[in-house]
Amino acid sequence: MMAGPHGLYGHLFGEREVADRLSDRARVQAMLDVEAELAEALARVGVAPASSVEPIRQVARAELYDLAALATEAARAGNAVIPLVADLTRRVATSDAEAARYVHWGATSQDIIDTALVLQMRAASAPLLRQLDRAARAAAAHAHRHRNTPMPGRTWLQHATPTTFGLKAAGWLDGLERVRRAVSSAFSSSFVLQFGGASGTLASLGPAAIDVASALAERLDLELPPAPWHGHRDRLAQLACALGVATGTLGKIARDLALLAQTEVAEARPGETAGGSSTMPHKRNPVSCAVALAAAVRVPGLVASMLAGMPQEHERGLGGWHAEWDVLPEIVLLTSGAARSVADALDDLVIDAARMRRNLEMTRGLAQSEAVAMTLGRDLGKHEAHALVEAASRRAAAEERPLAEVLAEDASVTRVMTPNAIEHCLSPEAYLGVADAFIDRILATWKRKD
Amino acid sequence: MMAGPHGLYGHLFGEREVADRLSDRARVQAMLDVEAELAEALARVGVAPASSVEPIRQVARAELYDLAALATEAARAGNAVIPLVADLTRRVATSDAEAARYVHWGATSQDIIDTALVLQMRAASAPLLRQLDRAARAAAAHAHRHRNTPMPGRTWLQHATPTTFGLKAAGWLDGLERVRRAVSSAFSSSFVLQFGGASGTLASLGPAAIDVASALAERLDLELPPAPWHGHRDRLAQLACALGVATGTLGKIARDLALLAQTEVAEARPGETAGGSSTMPHKRNPVSCAVALAAAVRVPGLVASMLAGMPQEHERGLGGWHAEWDVLPEIVLLTSGAARSVADALDDLVIDAARMRRNLEMTRGLAQSEAVAMTLGRDLGKHEAHALVEAASRRAAAEERPLAEVLAEDASVTRVMTPNAIEHCLSPEAYLGVADAFIDRILATWKRKD
Amino acid sequence: MMAGPHGLYGHLFGEREVADRLSDRARVQAMLDVEAELAEALARVGVAPASSVEPIRQVARAELYDLAALATEAARAGNAVIPLVADLTRRVATSDAEAARYVHWGATSQDIIDTALVLQMRAASAPLLRQLDRAARAAAAHAHRHRNTPMPGRTWLQHATPTTFGLKAAGWLDGLERVRRAVSSAFSSSFVLQFGGASGTLASLGPAAIDVASALAERLDLELPPAPWHGHRDRLAQLACALGVATGTLGKIARDLALLAQTEVAEARPGETAGGSSTMPHKRNPVSCAVALAAAVRVPGLVASMLAGMPQEHERGLGGWHAEWDVLPEIVLLTSGAARSVADALDDLVIDAARMRRNLEMTRGLAQSEAVAMTLGRDLGKHEAHALVEAASRRAAAEERPLAEVLAEDASVTRVMTPNAIEHCLSPEAYLGVADAFIDRILATWKRKD
Amino acid sequence: MMAGPHGLYGHLFGEREVADRLSDRARVQAMLDVEAELAEALARVGVAPASSVEPIRQVARAELYDLAALATEAARAGNAVIPLVADLTRRVATSDAEAARYVHWGATSQDIIDTALVLQMRAASAPLLRQLDRAARAAAAHAHRHRNTPMPGRTWLQHATPTTFGLKAAGWLDGLERVRRAVSSAFSSSFVLQFGGASGTLASLGPAAIDVASALAERLDLELPPAPWHGHRDRLAQLACALGVATGTLGKIARDLALLAQTEVAEARPGETAGGSSTMPHKRNPVSCAVALAAAVRVPGLVASMLAGMPQEHERGLGGWHAEWDVLPEIVLLTSGAARSVADALDDLVIDAARMRRNLEMTRGLAQSEAVAMTLGRDLGKHEAHALVEAASRRAAAEERPLAEVLAEDASVTRVMTPNAIEHCLSPEAYLGVADAFIDRILATWKRKD
Repeated sequence: MMAGPHGLYGHLFGEREVADRLSDRARVQAMLDVEAELAEALARVGVAPASSVEPIRQVARAELYDLAALATEAARAGNAVIPLVADLTRRVATSDAEAARYVHWGATSQDIIDTALVLQMRAASAPLLRQLDRAARAAAAHAHRHRNTPMPGRTWLQHATPTTFGLKAAGWLDGLERVRRAVSSAFSSSFVLQFGGASGTLASLGPAAIDVASALAERLDLELPPAPWHGHRDRLAQLACALGVATGTLGKIARDLALLAQTEVAEARPGETAGGSSTMPHKRNPVSCAVALAAAVRVPGLVASMLAGMPQEHERGLGGWHAEWDVLPEIVLLTSGAARSVADALDDLVIDAARMRRNLEMTRGLAQSEAVAMTLGRDLGKHEAHALVEAASRRAAAEERPLAEVLAEDASVTRVMTPNAIEHCLSPEAYLGVADAFIDRILATWKRKD
Repeated sequence: MMAGPHGLYGHLFGEREVADRLSDRARVQAMLDVEAELAEALARVGVAPASSVEPIRQVARAELYDLAALATEAARAGNAVIPLVADLTRRVATSDAEAARYVHWGATSQDIIDTALVLQMRAASAPLLRQLDRAARAAAAHAHRHRNTPMPGRTWLQHATPTTFGLKAAGWLDGLERVRRAVSSAFSSSFVLQFGGASGTLASLGPAAIDVASALAERLDLELPPAPWHGHRDRLAQLACALGVATGTLGKIARDLALLAQTEVAEARPGETAGGSSTMPHKRNPVSCAVALAAAVRVPGLVASMLAGMPQEHERGLGGWHAEWDVLPEIVLLTSGAARSVADALDDLVIDAARMRRNLEMTRGLAQSEAVAMTLGRDLGKHEAHALVEAASRRAAAEERPLAEVLAEDASVTRVMTPNAIEHCLSPEAYLGVADAFIDRILATWKRKD
Repeated sequence: MMAGPHGLYGHLFGEREVADRLSDRARVQAMLDVEAELAEALARVGVAPASSVEPIRQVARAELYDLAALATEAARAGNAVIPLVADLTRRVATSDAEAARYVHWGATSQDIIDTALVLQMRAASAPLLRQLDRAARAAAAHAHRHRNTPMPGRTWLQHATPTTFGLKAAGWLDGLERVRRAVSSAFSSSFVLQFGGASGTLASLGPAAIDVASALAERLDLELPPAPWHGHRDRLAQLACALGVATGTLGKIARDLALLAQTEVAEARPGETAGGSSTMPHKRNPVSCAVALAAAVRVPGLVASMLAGMPQEHERGLGGWHAEWDVLPEIVLLTSGAARSVADALDDLVIDAARMRRNLEMTRGLAQSEAVAMTLGRDLGKHEAHALVEAASRRAAAEERPLAEVLAEDASVTRVMTPNAIEHCLSPEAYLGVADAFIDRILATWKRKD
Repeated sequence: MMAGPHGLYGHLFGEREVADRLSDRARVQAMLDVEAELAEALARVGVAPASSVEPIRQVARAELYDLAALATEAARAGNAVIPLVADLTRRVATSDAEAARYVHWGATSQDIIDTALVLQMRAASAPLLRQLDRAARAAAAHAHRHRNTPMPGRTWLQHATPTTFGLKAAGWLDGLERVRRAVSSAFSSSFVLQFGGASGTLASLGPAAIDVASALAERLDLELPPAPWHGHRDRLAQLACALGVATGTLGKIARDLALLAQTEVAEARPGETAGGSSTMPHKRNPVSCAVALAAAVRVPGLVASMLAGMPQEHERGLGGWHAEWDVLPEIVLLTSGAARSVADALDDLVIDAARMRRNLEMTRGLAQSEAVAMTLGRDLGKHEAHALVEAASRRAAAEERPLAEVLAEDASVTRVMTPNAIEHCLSPEAYLGVADAFIDRILATWKRKD
């Protein structure tokens, strides 16, 4: 037996509530829910007697069924619905032989498996989106609070011109908002009934077929699609993709956080959610970042599996369909864990603004060299200015002296700028551009959406 | 030198017009277009003199530049913009030294590379969507024409209950329509300006920055995003995903077609677009199907690469960003080739309705066994009926006799159904369910969208 | 709680014994085994007293530990070893406080996690290889038995020149043998101790370190590597790859089988392992093929995840390492299920040689058209002959007449070949080439290895 | 037209010599080489006259053929061999009509395409392995030179106990050596002739078939496999995998280098191969690292494509096979570029040992806290000692004081250790464990292999 809904590391890599809703017990319950509502739909349309509903609903409770036995029989039958329906029918028959005749009436295994999967997706969507919202709110708070906190901008992992922590956090917020919308929309588009019978014509239900399908969709509160989609898996693949993109954005934030928390950088560090080390007492490991980054490593491959399985044969696929059963829930689980981890990490983040300032000074003005180059460029031409500042930068670096000092020795510079002007030009605060305006634009977008 | 815009197999695996718009020449032109429009934007806002625009635009033509030399220098510089801007500036300087100072003003390499990529995506989108439309139209025509053409439904590659070729084609149409919308929407969402300067603050442009950005977006007819997105790649990843899902759907159609064209099935065969064999004179190889299936094998891995590259460090990534440069265009190219191939295959498809009918009869009624089981079920109970028909089916198969004949020998059947009723019940035409209604629903959706 | 060692579908998609050895219980036991043998190694080298061994070993039994609690604590600590070692130490301390001091001495969490994973890989390797052997033996038996059973060769899913079922099965055998060797060798190369302490220098063990490592490797019967490999994951990635290639070969066999079992082809069909349908009494679904094909869809993405996680930071990775914990066991499980399924399918396969012969005749000689073309080519030149036969083939196809008949009407043919010679030339048995010799070569290779 | 053998970024992402050997021109030449050697083999066995060889060889030169025309015709025919053979035959015919009859005799397109691909792999292998060797040699030199250069060990991107730069470089060497061997072996295993004719039976060659195959293998210096492998792609997939693992290891080294080069870490920086910035004069961008990391992002997805394409139908696949044509060469190219980049980066690396020492002191002894914990543990028990040192570490961190100072205030510590002993215990040099021995073990292994 595994340790939890998804094994020893289910709680580490997944969000707890999402894990519960994707458990095997929940999977079986979702299948039974579809069977129970099918009974209702059949009765409502008059295909089955009203009296058949209650006996079916009574035993459509997952806790009655032996999951281990189902797993064994599924290995023989090729899916869990075949033994589940057999067991369900036996149970109904003990109380009402007539009702037992209507169990699963008109449906095929794939109708139940797909619709149950859709129901599980819906159940998992709310807690997952909640974690994305938490992360966005935390990012927004950082964007507000730190709009005037300068820090090194970093490109290629090298100091570039300065930015603010507020703009960095606003960037995270902007990214989170976009993926949140995309995930939410992909979830909604996938909440679609699957009901087509053996070959997707609902032939066994006769002319009442579309009424039954319509009633079933209504009872399950799912969209009734134009036609069954047994062999067309784009909605589920699209959902996998949206989650994959979200995990990528969460991984980007986690990578930024892990880099900021490095011993030498120390601009932001994890608070209480961080893990200890089994051997090194002083360490605070960024566990949350590791979880989100692990998801960002795993999910792309899983998305590729969903896409690779799409070319499914004719009216029901052989292999491609089966691949989805565990892969899609795993993508949802990992995304939920990544979202929870990033939300935790952002909520819990300890910012060291003084250290950001100190790190900015490490390069003795080099990071703002562009500022001087641009200013000088107005008089000397961009390329000459660029070359001049490049030379001065190299000299400053080699001699470990402030760039301002080196520039102040160059007559072609001082002809244009006073030492004070150079000094000012090289201060990070003077070279933050429109960081603030960008933060406002992002926050405004976010509030509109909120 | 390669043979074409994308090498020896660029025309096989890609659509010709898309390939042209994704060629290296087009890539360099797109970069130059951004530089030229930047000059316009700078001039309009008053950062640069109006006189600087024309000298820049004059030499912003890709045919002036030596691509082989650019490729060599890009290997040293790390991207093509650095040598391209150097060359562009030199050329501008020969006609107007003053104008040369404003080349690339305020921008960073990534601004040009990303925006040029976006422009290439826009250029490629129209011919790609055209091929998806062609495929959809061809599928719709088949759905119309063959709504009364019964054929075997097939699940697990085995005959299941009958369907119609019209419904199969409608299913393709439905799938094509959904991915067409998703691709179109993902393209539109990605038509966004990248313009942030060194660290995404546009610091070198001072307070005029947002006006310049806005003017540049307007000139390029791109959306101005709330802020630069150097480290946030979700829009491009989302586009890759939408194309990945589309390729999956195209692969599904190609797989169906290839299976239908098998020598033993022969229900649909490729017409003139099919390839010959170098050794076997009688063969018509389904080249179009192979192209779409190859895309469906290749694109999932490429999408995984786009997703895996998303966690990009801080204000500019190291590796993840570089991975996109060739991967995203390759995804677009392969999707375009798959769309063109499926459109060709559907346009060119020769349907053999008589063979479909004959194949339906192969199983001597077994494929419609569900029909009898359902009818008998009303009297005998579903499970008893199922067991009875299953036994009769096995006997019919073993003795190679029609199922109707075997059933007519069983008293528990004839008590309920006359031989004629059995015969009728086992005719495919009587067991097509609501295939027709499903076709109508799909065509109605399609027309609304069209 | 999940239904089995790997949930509701663990027995469908995995081999049972492999699943047991990869269960969470087995994972915890493997970790405890490493801790117990570490105690032995420390005692043997004299770092710990001999009396510390037994108290540790006594409680190093997984059944003593609460997996659900471990899962919860692992979510906080970042891995399961931290809470497990804490619990283990408490338990040892209740019987021997002195011994408790030596629990986990010198090790870091990753030493335990990696070595335990290696032990699980070793435990899983034997039953997995056994299934590959079963599949190979079954393929060899078919190769023997059917060396003279002609069937259509098929390229692009079209009839090509004839082959024999023996050669097809020998091809499977050849492929299985190669991947069997590669998997076995990759397993062996991964049976390597991980033991490096906090940063891979074993600093906490002083000069005795290598003796302890050596003793630990000996006790666990693992290779002692030149140095710890905390950040270098190539051995595990290589194992994942070998399993990925094996799954690809198993998927190829499954695809062939599924295609041969199609209603219209019916040359080979699954026997008793096949699954029934929930609605269609006559169906025998190729469940085994679906399982192997599902693995072939899923494993490539998982291999990509293993590879994508390889660039791990410095002395211990952040995310990339964590990604391996569930991904590598999943690859092993899916490969075992694919191997078991293909072995079952091949063992159980019902061959219809008469149907193969009948299918060969479907094309009325077209499939052997190459034979005539080659024969005529000797006199007419290859290209003229090819053109002539191509024209005759088209006419034969269009008029649904035997190719021999059409050819016999052509004077340029009859000038060279008599009608009898044409007839003979077009018989499948006369055009099997060196199929037999190829079978012998493969069987000889296999026996040598066996 | 593209800029180079693999477009604008072919020289950035690929090694130049490898790129040349994988160019379209080289691809066509390899195909022509197979055709020419086939003519030789046919003549040697007596199937074709000796006089047919020279006329074929004369025109089997790629520069005679119009690649753009071939690309166009390949799009129609489905591969490049069909139009190439047609053109080749025409050219032979102009000089010797008799010889023209023997062009391509007995072969099928796939024989030529696969064998040509194998020849290209062989041509590319030498320069690729050379780059891996260069990288290994450079790593070995660093391991030698810096065996006594202490630096912070880093786990989870946090300082852990110290290590040496020598051991880090030795770890790279060890990893490079293993992947070098695996790549070399996978290349060798793939140097196998493909020659089976239409369905893999060589039927058109009659009883001479195996002699022809054998002669062809000998002339091309390729292994003659037991049988053709048209549908079995494991050797090529295995090669893709070995390259994928190698790219992962190269990516790991590049990631380490990029992290060490960070402005705040500055322990190792790129020398002259580094790229400049288009806007920031002071920057030295780690271009080499970006190239290797981009490969590590791209190759896993490409490997997944190779694996996903393996289940190829019957005697020749539809789509899966076609996917390999561009994907495998792309993997080789990207791996070669990653190897060249890492070799460049290691050759060119500027090590700052003083900075390593200074970074070690940043944590004021915290990084060596394990040393004290282990020492104290001998007296106090491991867990008490761990707790005590953890508390002291927190206090030292909070108060920004040296750990030694804080520990010296604790009576339970000073009871066991003098302040001097604490100080010594916390010096990095005293806590390097068996780093040196590990370096020796790795260098010894490397030299043995060398």
